[in-house]
Amino acid sequence: MSANTFGTIFKVTTFGESHGPALGCVIDGCPAGIELSLSDIEAELARRRPGAVHGSRDESDKPEILSGVFEGKTLGSPIAIIVRNENQNSKDYADIKDIYRPGHADFTWDAKYGFRDYRGGGRSSGRETLCRVAAGAVAKKLLSLKGIKINASAEINSSIEDARGEGDSVGGIVSCQITGLSAGLGEPVFDKLDARLAGAILSIGACKGIEFGAGFAASQMKGSENNDLPANEGDFKYASNNAGGILGGISTGQDIVFKAAFKPTPSIGKKQKAYDKDGNVREIEIKGRHDVCIVPRVVVVVEAMAALVLADSLLLNLSSKNN
Amino acid sequence: MSANTFGTIFKVTTFGESHGPALGCVIDGCPAGIELSLSDIEAELARRRPGAVHGSRDESDKPEILSGVFEGKTLGSPIAIIVRNENQNSKDYADIKDIYRPGHADFTWDAKYGFRDYRGGGRSSGRETLCRVAAGAVAKKLLSLKGIKINASAEINSSIEDARGEGDSVGGIVSCQITGLSAGLGEPVFDKLDARLAGAILSIGACKGIEFGAGFAASQMKGSENNDLPANEGDFKYASNNAGGILGGISTGQDIVFKAAFKPTPSIGKKQKAYDKDGNVREIEIKGRHDVCIVPRVVVVVEAMAALVLADSLLLNLSSKNN
Amino acid sequence: MSANTFGTIFKVTTFGESHGPALGCVIDGCPAGIELSLSDIEAELARRRPGAVHGSRDESDKPEILSGVFEGKTLGSPIAIIVRNENQNSKDYADIKDIYRPGHADFTWDAKYGFRDYRGGGRSSGRETLCRVAAGAVAKKLLSLKGIKINASAEINSSIEDARGEGDSVGGIVSCQITGLSAGLGEPVFDKLDARLAGAILSIGACKGIEFGAGFAASQMKGSENNDLPANEGDFKYASNNAGGILGGISTGQDIVFKAAFKPTPSIGKKQKAYDKDGNVREIEIKGRHDVCIVPRVVVVVEAMAALVLADSLLLNLSSKNN
Amino acid sequence: MSANTFGTIFKVTTFGESHGPALGCVIDGCPAGIELSLSDIEAELARRRPGAVHGSRDESDKPEILSGVFEGKTLGSPIAIIVRNENQNSKDYADIKDIYRPGHADFTWDAKYGFRDYRGGGRSSGRETLCRVAAGAVAKKLLSLKGIKINASAEINSSIEDARGEGDSVGGIVSCQITGLSAGLGEPVFDKLDARLAGAILSIGACKGIEFGAGFAASQMKGSENNDLPANEGDFKYASNNAGGILGGISTGQDIVFKAAFKPTPSIGKKQKAYDKDGNVREIEIKGRHDVCIVPRVVVVVEAMAALVLADSLLLNLSSKNN
Repeated sequence: MSANTFGTIFKVTTFGESHGPALGCVIDGCPAGIELSLSDIEAELARRRPGAVHGSRDESDKPEILSGVFEGKTLGSPIAIIVRNENQNSKDYADIKDIYRPGHADFTWDAKYGFRDYRGGGRSSGRETLCRVAAGAVAKKLLSLKGIKINASAEINSSIEDARGEGDSVGGIVSCQITGLSAGLGEPVFDKLDARLAGAILSIGACKGIEFGAGFAASQMKGSENNDLPANEGDFKYASNNAGGILGGISTGQDIVFKAAFKPTPSIGKKQKAYDKDGNVREIEIKGRHDVCIVPRVVVVVEAMAALVLADSLLLNLSSKNN
Repeated sequence: MSANTFGTIFKVTTFGESHGPALGCVIDGCPAGIELSLSDIEAELARRRPGAVHGSRDESDKPEILSGVFEGKTLGSPIAIIVRNENQNSKDYADIKDIYRPGHADFTWDAKYGFRDYRGGGRSSGRETLCRVAAGAVAKKLLSLKGIKINASAEINSSIEDARGEGDSVGGIVSCQITGLSAGLGEPVFDKLDARLAGAILSIGACKGIEFGAGFAASQMKGSENNDLPANEGDFKYASNNAGGILGGISTGQDIVFKAAFKPTPSIGKKQKAYDKDGNVREIEIKGRHDVCIVPRVVVVVEAMAALVLADSLLLNLSSKNN
Repeated sequence: MSANTFGTIFKVTTFGESHGPALGCVIDGCPAGIELSLSDIEAELARRRPGAVHGSRDESDKPEILSGVFEGKTLGSPIAIIVRNENQNSKDYADIKDIYRPGHADFTWDAKYGFRDYRGGGRSSGRETLCRVAAGAVAKKLLSLKGIKINASAEINSSIEDARGEGDSVGGIVSCQITGLSAGLGEPVFDKLDARLAGAILSIGACKGIEFGAGFAASQMKGSENNDLPANEGDFKYASNNAGGILGGISTGQDIVFKAAFKPTPSIGKKQKAYDKDGNVREIEIKGRHDVCIVPRVVVVVEAMAALVLADSLLLNLSSKNN
Repeated sequence: MSANTFGTIFKVTTFGESHGPALGCVIDGCPAGIELSLSDIEAELARRRPGAVHGSRDESDKPEILSGVFEGKTLGSPIAIIVRNENQNSKDYADIKDIYRPGHADFTWDAKYGFRDYRGGGRSSGRETLCRVAAGAVAKKLLSLKGIKINASAEINSSIEDARGEGDSVGGIVSCQITGLSAGLGEPVFDKLDARLAGAILSIGACKGIEFGAGFAASQMKGSENNDLPANEGDFKYASNNAGGILGGISTGQDIVFKAAFKPTPSIGKKQKAYDKDGNVREIEIKGRHDVCIVPRVVVVVEAMAALVLADSLLLNLSSKNN
C-alpha cells in the first residue's frame, strides 16, 4: 500500500537509512508455529555481503530479532528484525551533499521531499535491500515447508576487474527459477503472479527490466511456436515452458522462470559532470568504496523478493475455494 | 490488494466475465469536480474495438455511467461504469468446456478455483481489459489537467495477413512514452514508479516482459555509458534518457519510456494437442473469431494501465511534503 | 482502504447515489464454489424495504447479478450486484438544494467536496445501505456453511405513531447476537473483532454508539464482578458473558453480543431553522416521504455489516497457524 | 489491513511482546519536513507511565528513533521507534503458563495461534499500547501544525484505594474532545470519521463501548430535540452538538466529542476460578504488579489513537477535490 510495505497477508514493512542508527523490517502475517532462528536470517544476509568483491563497504550486518518469535517458533505476531549500521563513513558524503550524483536518486528525492539524508543515498541506498533479504529469509522458511525453492544466478558478460581498473562499473542479468510449485497458485487480473513478481523485482534499485519464460522473444514468435503443448498422456506436463510457469497469472505447475536486467552501478571513480542543487554543472569524482558490479549481491535480493511474493500467494490461496 | 482492485488512492475495481451479463469498473478516490462525460469513455473504448481487424468479435461496447458523476462533474463518490455483453456466442465454447486450451488460463483456473466459466475464457478473457480502458479514460482526464500525456505504439514485425492465412497468430511490442511530467512523482522502495508500472503492465494478459529506458541493454553497458549526464547549465535537463525518466522510483522530469512484449494470441485455427480435464491428450481446433494479433488493441490498454499508475501517484504525492 | 471498500480478503466496494441511475456493490474475495442465487439477495433486501411502515419511499429494489456467479455457484471472481433507482422524485429536493438540512451531511459534503448531488442526500443517503445488505446476503451464505448465524432486533421506546402525528421522528437501539462461533476467530491489536465490528456498525449513518457485552456498565464494575468465570469442568463454557464473546479481539466461543444506538431520523416535517449555502439562517419544512423511525429497517443493515466482518475474519483466520 | 498496521496514508505498524527484547512502531507516510525530536515522544510516553499509581510495573520506556528523522526533521521515509523491555520478571508467569486467566486473551490466543508467549500476556499485553503512544506523538506533531488539539480525561466513579485494599480492580470512562477542526474532514460511507475513531478506540484492550455526541441518549430523543440547529446568522455555528462534531462521517467544524468505556483490570489479587489448558477448573491468585485501574494510563492512548485517525484523515483529504 504505502511505499515501504509489501504484501497483502504476508506483509513486510522496511525502514532505515544507509547512515542512520539502524535498518530493519517488520513481518506481519506470518503464520504461527514456524521454526525460525537467527541463523536462518544470518545465512541469507551473508549471501548479500560484499565477500570476495574487494573494496566494497564491510558490513558485518548482525541481525537482532526483537519480537514475534518465542521458543524457536513464530508466534503469529509481527516479527521485527533490526541491523545496526556500524561502518558509517559519513565524511565521504559531506563534499557532495549539494550535488546530484548521476544515475542516483539524489535529484528526484529532493524534488519529491524537499530535502534528503544525503549520506550514502539515505533511504535510496542499496543498503535498504538488507531488510528485504532478512524478510525473504522468513518467507523462505514458509515456502520450504511446501517444498518450494528459489534459485537465482548472475550472468555478467563484462570483466569486473577491467571495469575496476578503469574506475568504471558493469551491469548484468539475474536469472531466477522457482521449483516445487503446484498448479493453481497466484491471483488473476491485477495481481497476476507475473505482475506481482515484476513489481517486486523492479522495486529493486538498478533493475531496468524483466521477462518471463520466452519473454521478449515470444513477441517475435507465432502462436503455434509459443504455445506450450502436452508432453505425455495423463500428467499435465508440457513439452516446453515458454509461459515461464504462469498462465493467466496463475502457476501451471511448471517451474517459474524469469530474467531481470540490472544496470551498472552509477557510482564510478571516473570524473563525471553533474548538476548541483542550483542547476549548475559541476565535475565530480565519487569517493568511497562502491561495488563495481552489484549483480552478484543482488542475487539473494531477487530471491528474497520472489519469496515474499510466493509466501503471500500461498496464504492468499487458502481462501480461493470453499473448503 | 485483492486481485480485482488496483491502486491506493485512485482505486479501480473491475468485474465481469466474457459471456456473463456485463463487465464494469468502480473508480473510487477520484477527486470531486473533474469534468467527465460518457464520450470520454466511449472514445477510449473505441480504440480497443476490433475495427479494421477482420473477423474478431464485434463488440459495440456501450458504456453506462451508474454513479459518481453529477451535472457533468465527478462527485468524489465512486464512479461505476458498466458495459453489457451483447454478442455472446456461447455455443462455440460448449465443445471445449472440458479441454484446456494451450496458452490459455483454463487449466490454471480450474486448479485454483475448482471450476470455471469456460465460455470465452470467463474472467480470464481479454475482454476484461475493457474495464481497464474505461477506468483509464477517467484517469487520463485527471492527468490531462496536469499536462501529462501518455502515448503508446505497436511494433509488429511479422505479417498479420500471412499468419491469418496459416491459421496462426503473431505477437509484438508496445512502446509507451509519458510526457509532461515534473520531477518528484512516484514513491520509493516497494512502490517505485517503474515497479508499479511493471506490475500494471504485466497484469495485462499476454504480456511477457517489460523494460524501462535502456532496459536489458543497460545490463551490458558500463556505468560511464549508462549514466545520464547534464545537457545544459541551469535546467536539470539530461543529454540522454537511459534511465527511462525514473531514478530511485521517482520521476526525473524527463519522459518516462518503456517497452512491453506481448506473446502471440494463443487461440489459433491450426490443430493443436491439448489436455482435457482428465489429463488425456486430445486434438483441438479452436473455433470462434479471434484476433490474429492482439497488439494493436492492447495499445490503449497499456496507456490505461499507465494512466492508473500515474493518477494514483499524483494523488499520493500530495502528502509527500509538509505544506 | 478507501472509503467505499470494506474488508481485507472478503472485500466489498459499494457505489451509487440516491437519485442516480443505480446503486450496487462488488464483492471480491468470496471463495469459489458457494451456492448463490438471486433469491438469497432478494430475501435480505426485502427485510430492508419500508413494508408496513407507511409513507416511506416505495423501493422495489430488484437486484441483478452482473458477474461472479456461474451455474448457481460463486466463481471466485468479483460478484457485482446492481439495483436500479426507479422511484426518483427529484423535484422534492430542488427547493432545498441550497439549504443544509439539520442533522444531514449536506453541509459537511459541500465542505469536503466543493459540491454535491443534493437529490435525496446523494451518496450520503440511507439508500446506500441497500448495497451493504446485498453484500451481507453473500457473506451470510459463507457464514451459514460454518454454522454461524446473526440475529439483530430493534428496541424502540417511543411511539412511532405519536411522532408521525407531530411531524417528528424517533430513534432506537439495535441489539445483535452472533451464534455458532468457535473460539479463536478474529485478529489482535488494531483489527480486534470488536474494533472491526465497531467500525462497521458506526459506519452506518445515524449510528451514535456501540457497546459489547456488559458495555458501558462494565466501566462501573469491579474486576471480580466483570470477569467471566468457568461454568463447568472440562468445556471452556463461562457462567456469564460480560466480555460479549470477545477477549483480546478474538472470539471466546460464546455468543458475540453488542448493542448500537441510532439517532432519530433528521428529516422531520416540523419547521426547523437551517443554514443556506451563504450562511443565512432560513426556515425549512422537509417534504418527501421519510421514515419516522429508521431503526426497524436498520436491523438487517446491522446484520449485514456484522456478516461482512465475520466473513472476512473467517478467511483471514485460514492463515493464522502453520498447517 | 493486517492486524498490526493502522491507517491508509499515515500508516503505523507496531510490534513487540510484553517480555520480549523490545517493542516498537514504524510510521510510514508521514510527510517530510516536520520537526520531530526524541523529547516529543518521551513526553507522551511519560504520560502513559505508572507514575503516582503505586505498585505497577516500573517501565522507564526509553525510546530510540532508528530511522526517518534527519537534522531534526522527518525525511518522508519510515520513522522507526523502539523501546527496550528492561524490567522483565518472567518468573511471575511461569506458574500460570498453562492457565487461562479470566478476562484475559490467554485462551483466545491459544485457540487462534496454537500457542502463545504466556509471559505477561505477550503480544496481548497492555504494554503494546506504548507503541501507539509513540506513534501518536508523531501524529500530534502533524496535527498541531493545523491547530488541531486532542484532550482526553478520565472519569472513575469508584475508589481505586478501596479496590486495591480488596485485591480488586475498577474501570472507568475516558472522555475525549478534539478542537481546532475545520469542516470537511473525514471520509464517507465505510470510513466515516466516527467509524474510524470507533474502530481505533475499541482496538485498545479493555474498551467495551464508545458513543459520539449525544450517543446512546440520542436513541431516546426525538428528531426535533436531537438535530443541531443554527446558532447565529452567517457563521455555520450550531446551538448544540448532539452530533459530536460529525455528520455523515465528515467533520462539521464543531469539536469532536466522544466517550469510551473501559472495563476493570482483569488481573486481580483475589482468588478466582480459571480453566487450565485441559479444561480443568483451577483456583488462581494472580501475582505480579498490576494496575488497579488502567483508566488514567489509557487517557494518552485514547488521544494517540484519535491522533492517528485524524492525521490520516488530514492526508486523505488532500485529494478530495480537484485543485
